[in-house]
Amino acid sequence: MAQEDVFKKLVAHCKEYGFVFQSSEIYDGLGAVYDYGQNGVELKNNIKKYWWDSMVLLHENVVGLDSAIFMHPTTWKASGHVDAFNDPLIDNKDSKKRYRADVLIEDLMAKFEGKIDKEIEKARKKFGDDFDEAQFRETNPRVKANQDKLDEVHGRFVKALNDNDLTELRQIIVDYEVACPLSGSKEWTDVRQFNLMFSTEMGSTAEGASKIYLRPETAQGIFVNFLNVQKTGRMKLPFGIAQIGKAFRNEIVARQFIFRMREFEQMEMQFFVRPGEEMKWFEYWKEMRMKWHKSMGMGDEKYRFHDHDKLAHYANAATDVEFEMPFGFKEVEGIHSRTDFDLSQHQEFSGKKMQYFDPELNKSYVPYVIETSIGVDRMFLSILAGAYTEEEVPGKDGKSESRVVLKLPPVIAPVKLAVLPLVRKDGLPEKALEIMDQFKFDFNCRYEEKDSIGKRYRRQDAIGTPFCITVDHQTMEDDSVTIRYRDSMEQERVKISELYKIMTGHISMKELLKSLI
Amino acid sequence: MAQEDVFKKLVAHCKEYGFVFQSSEIYDGLGAVYDYGQNGVELKNNIKKYWWDSMVLLHENVVGLDSAIFMHPTTWKASGHVDAFNDPLIDNKDSKKRYRADVLIEDLMAKFEGKIDKEIEKARKKFGDDFDEAQFRETNPRVKANQDKLDEVHGRFVKALNDNDLTELRQIIVDYEVACPLSGSKEWTDVRQFNLMFSTEMGSTAEGASKIYLRPETAQGIFVNFLNVQKTGRMKLPFGIAQIGKAFRNEIVARQFIFRMREFEQMEMQFFVRPGEEMKWFEYWKEMRMKWHKSMGMGDEKYRFHDHDKLAHYANAATDVEFEMPFGFKEVEGIHSRTDFDLSQHQEFSGKKMQYFDPELNKSYVPYVIETSIGVDRMFLSILAGAYTEEEVPGKDGKSESRVVLKLPPVIAPVKLAVLPLVRKDGLPEKALEIMDQFKFDFNCRYEEKDSIGKRYRRQDAIGTPFCITVDHQTMEDDSVTIRYRDSMEQERVKISELYKIMTGHISMKELLKSLI
Repeated sequence: MAQEDVFKKLVAHCKEYGFVFQSSEIYDGLGAVYDYGQNGVELKNNIKKYWWDSMVLLHENVVGLDSAIFMHPTTWKASGHVDAFNDPLIDNKDSKKRYRADVLIEDLMAKFEGKIDKEIEKARKKFGDDFDEAQFRETNPRVKANQDKLDEVHGRFVKALNDNDLTELRQIIVDYEVACPLSGSKEWTDVRQFNLMFSTEMGSTAEGASKIYLRPETAQGIFVNFLNVQKTGRMKLPFGIAQIGKAFRNEIVARQFIFRMREFEQMEMQFFVRPGEEMKWFEYWKEMRMKWHKSMGMGDEKYRFHDHDKLAHYANAATDVEFEMPFGFKEVEGIHSRTDFDLSQHQEFSGKKMQYFDPELNKSYVPYVIETSIGVDRMFLSILAGAYTEEEVPGKDGKSESRVVLKLPPVIAPVKLAVLPLVRKDGLPEKALEIMDQFKFDFNCRYEEKDSIGKRYRRQDAIGTPFCITVDHQTMEDDSVTIRYRDSMEQERVKISELYKIMTGHISMKELLKSLI
Repeated sequence: MAQEDVFKKLVAHCKEYGFVFQSSEIYDGLGAVYDYGQNGVELKNNIKKYWWDSMVLLHENVVGLDSAIFMHPTTWKASGHVDAFNDPLIDNKDSKKRYRADVLIEDLMAKFEGKIDKEIEKARKKFGDDFDEAQFRETNPRVKANQDKLDEVHGRFVKALNDNDLTELRQIIVDYEVACPLSGSKEWTDVRQFNLMFSTEMGSTAEGASKIYLRPETAQGIFVNFLNVQKTGRMKLPFGIAQIGKAFRNEIVARQFIFRMREFEQMEMQFFVRPGEEMKWFEYWKEMRMKWHKSMGMGDEKYRFHDHDKLAHYANAATDVEFEMPFGFKEVEGIHSRTDFDLSQHQEFSGKKMQYFDPELNKSYVPYVIETSIGVDRMFLSILAGAYTEEEVPGKDGKSESRVVLKLPPVIAPVKLAVLPLVRKDGLPEKALEIMDQFKFDFNCRYEEKDSIGKRYRRQDAIGTPFCITVDHQTMEDDSVTIRYRDSMEQERVKISELYKIMTGHISMKELLKSLI
């Protein structure tokens, strides 16, 4: 099955099984904003809890914070967001449609690449084993022409971005006759910078209200509170501050379901270190974070690092953790060595010292920072994409049938166990509810009695419930039940008295955390 | 100690011990916005988890949801917020200061009440046991004059609010010569309505962006998703949807620390019932919610119901759970019977049926709704206010000394246990860390070795740590430690091998949840 089809099915599955709904769906939706349904919210909360515990419980020198979405507007001057958090936008004069100029140029380059690939594919088919791709690239005139154009566009594009040259961005679009995908028109306005921060007005005085922003990242809430936490928590370097919270970006091109949203959630940890020791900690957190991702059991081969060639102005090292989504390897987490950039900026703009007194060195300095930053929503998407499985399994009468199952780690699964009476009579429902009472304060459990047991198993498979406990007539005789395992679909008969120990053994955040050390 | 002083001390305590910081403090703060520090975030998360579990785990027919802050703007037309979520504001012409007209009139009424109280107090002192308050009220000319004014203002005020008569609101202020508290001036502008919703612009097209709002309440996110959850979750009436999330109100008069903020968090549950059965469920949730509050152990006498005399246009019954704050009994939770108002409004504005097919009655209808709605931040404040204790305890050399202790329930406390080596040598620190390893995956623990053991106990008292485990020289001989209990300050010597069972017994969300049924 093509990967786009898998993605489409995943999106439909999210809706059908209460994971993700389009925001304000009854009003025909709101662009690039989504709501988490009854199963989605549990999955998301479990991911957040696992991250939080892996930061705050596992590391004695990492503590939490919950700073507000609203911050003093000078914060965003200091961080550079007011001046530089822009997208270059261009309007087509005929269709009145607005585009990101950089995306139009990237699409243009992809077109040239596509042409080259096509020629090569054609030749490979024609020449078979004798085909020498390198030679072909050097000699074929059509490939060479496209490669030259690609190189030229790429060179001009990189230079224009570096120089922040909006006129040149437009010129590339004009020179290569880029047409509006909607209207086909080649009439373009100037390129203008468009700030991605949402703004609003706070307060109301006779003199007017003040303009503030919805934070575009949670990190700055940590930086401005650095000394508050360090002093009241008596923290010694190195130490970290972890935070989970909403952030907002007015993306023009919002794509791929919950991968890029206008309202999203971040899990960020800023780790403050002695200047000069940042590379050691950068490596430490790279390893630690990769271990965390891999512990989800989605397959180690689905993860890779992508080191940044071009570093942001504030960074001296940066890497992404990428996950293989149905639409390719994509960033789920960034790990950045941010130097002392942010704290120094806040020191300058606030006039307050943002320094730490190091008792061992007997001097004060602005600490360096290693940041780990995940988008919760894309993490959620990566886990769902990794867990989503369609497979053929033995069905009735020796025939095979297909099932959809979410192979989620038990600790992360929205529902941990379902308790199912085989039939709706003979005291089986009452017995099932009695068993559920044992577990309902420990885990999110579900009780279901409607439809055949097979259908109920499938429904639990579809939301990733790792364990089904079935109560049948034998239960009434010998106090035994079956545990049906989601992935293997095997069934095991056990005594009710042993159930609690077995289940708490299978579903243990503690064991998952321990696997990280 | 006067209650205002207690409150001031509590606010200072919140800053000093990492519970609550002023937002963007280094930039001299942002009005009525606060950040939660390293201990505050843990306390807040624990309160949220206890609420969530008491809704979702305890009730098989309550499921969760996490809808976005951004919603389609028509949502707020349907809910009535665009037209009617206003405060009546008035400016003083000399000071240029803006006020809520209704608050100025409430303060005026409080002034008359104060004068009456003063006369009565004076007379009571003069006449002693013989004083007849009722008779005095009827006969004393000064009391009568003030009572007459109070009655007149009250009558005009209630009528003006009911009629939404802004001119009359202003007239009351003018007639009773209300002066600007800042300048003393009695020159006032007209009263104007000011909408409390924050707005922002989303998207960017050549035609412009669209105006959207930051939600002023989380409830509407539940209503618009009612059918999505009901259908995908196969829910049968009665059932509830629970949600925790941020909401925003541009309050002009934001007061009392985190009690009334511009950015705040709500925990809301909407319970959908058959029309006609709403009173039964209203009573059920009243009882359930009061039990939940009282289970915090702050003292049953600190809570009371306050039934609403005047109901909102959408409600047919409403009550508040009030808690005795240092500034009086205040609402921490509202329980409302909202009828079918919200779902019907969304049905009308969206053109989509918001109905449930009842298989027992074999008909479709718009369900009625019981809402339980807490402000997380004021819940947090109520718990801190209830837990904050200053007391004299036996100190060194037979003298008494004072301590500040937060008597928080163990499950809610930010740090569950502190492990403290008596001295920083002889292998005691290593032993202490070894003990902490047993617990650190279960609870938020703290290790501290600096300062005398007495000082360390006081620091843990101040953040509400219920248990301190002290490692001393005897520990090295017989593998025993002392548990020091926060409230009684008693110490108990136990074997290390017994510790885990003792601690998990004391700190159990499961037991707290069970106490609710």
